[in-house]
Amino acid sequence: MTATDEATPVSAATLYHQVQQFYAQQMQLLDDGRVEEWAGTFTEDGVFAANAHPEPVVGRAAITAAAARATEEYAAKGVQRRHWLGMVSVEPVDERSANARCYALVIETPRGGQAAIRVSTLCVDRLVRDGDGWLVQDRRVSRDDLA
Amino acid sequence: MTATDEATPVSAATLYHQVQQFYAQQMQLLDDGRVEEWAGTFTEDGVFAANAHPEPVVGRAAITAAAARATEEYAAKGVQRRHWLGMVSVEPVDERSANARCYALVIETPRGGQAAIRVSTLCVDRLVRDGDGWLVQDRRVSRDDLA
Amino acid sequence: MTATDEATPVSAATLYHQVQQFYAQQMQLLDDGRVEEWAGTFTEDGVFAANAHPEPVVGRAAITAAAARATEEYAAKGVQRRHWLGMVSVEPVDERSANARCYALVIETPRGGQAAIRVSTLCVDRLVRDGDGWLVQDRRVSRDDLA
Repeated sequence: MTATDEATPVSAATLYHQVQQFYAQQMQLLDDGRVEEWAGTFTEDGVFAANAHPEPVVGRAAITAAAARATEEYAAKGVQRRHWLGMVSVEPVDERSANARCYALVIETPRGGQAAIRVSTLCVDRLVRDGDGWLVQDRRVSRDDLA
Repeated sequence: MTATDEATPVSAATLYHQVQQFYAQQMQLLDDGRVEEWAGTFTEDGVFAANAHPEPVVGRAAITAAAARATEEYAAKGVQRRHWLGMVSVEPVDERSANARCYALVIETPRGGQAAIRVSTLCVDRLVRDGDGWLVQDRRVSRDDLA
Repeated sequence: MTATDEATPVSAATLYHQVQQFYAQQMQLLDDGRVEEWAGTFTEDGVFAANAHPEPVVGRAAITAAAARATEEYAAKGVQRRHWLGMVSVEPVDERSANARCYALVIETPRGGQAAIRVSTLCVDRLVRDGDGWLVQDRRVSRDDLA
């Protein structure tokens, strides 16, 4: 998947639907531990920056490696993560890109244990068109406890 | 309400909207204790399977009975349930059916008490068209703590 | 922003998208402490009624004042609020107005502390068209713990 120049304009309702569906599929990939497919939802040079990390993670290879480490840690602990993105606001920039701002929760459930919110965050994305879909070019996640 | 053959194709954005609205109305019926109307959001032979139950619940009569028992238990305890479905991914199968995969939380609030997450789950649905709306033909709910 | 008579009919999918986007932007304004812009998402004579308050708050000036007090209290405590609206059901009334019914959670995170659900509520809105957007004319919020 790479961003292309073939984008055609879509209505605001279609754009909003596409972003919601993209977010659902993207986070399900991460929560399922499908880390290479997760990294494939970023552009090849995609940036993942977070106020919980000293440095942004840049590029699919680094995003894959970071996700693989987290996935292994959670699997070793027997904890299922669920990333919930909601309160999504989408603003088109041009036919090939859009800005999105949403809230994101991480819900964790230990095997045999109690589900609970781990962190509440704000997520700000620059999205770019990729055929009929979207990729994250730049994501900035701010944990509310660190803000 | 029964599934009909009169379905006309809808756009991906319209399908996504219809499923979101259907899920909101469906779970509000359950949380309001309107158990027969809740059961009416399944096909007559609808299946509700969960990893928390030994056997699937099959058919509207059985779905009504199971929901009535749960509703009475919650009412007796003075607890308000809220089912939140989110991170919804919808894939059309044909003009009459679609697959959906989403996350579902159950939030509980005792009267005079503190709201909390009861369980975090994964919900996988086969949906079928019913006029302008949708019905669940098959729902599989996996609680994360039992997975 | 004031409601106008220039509304043109929109599809159900477009209406649903507009309400979701409106809710996201509206609650982000409140959570960001932008209280005058928040009050501007109600009609000039808008009503905010809640079972947690003895009287409805009526009109933008009163809504601004109430939001400013809450914002200052949270800032003084060092707590970030996030209002999550979900399970949104929207029913058009006519070309200029719609009824919406949704669930709302307030998630709170103290600086350096643990995110948690503060309250679970039911939110019932009368919305009116304002150009291409929407305003709340009447909002009724019921906290589940007080119901």
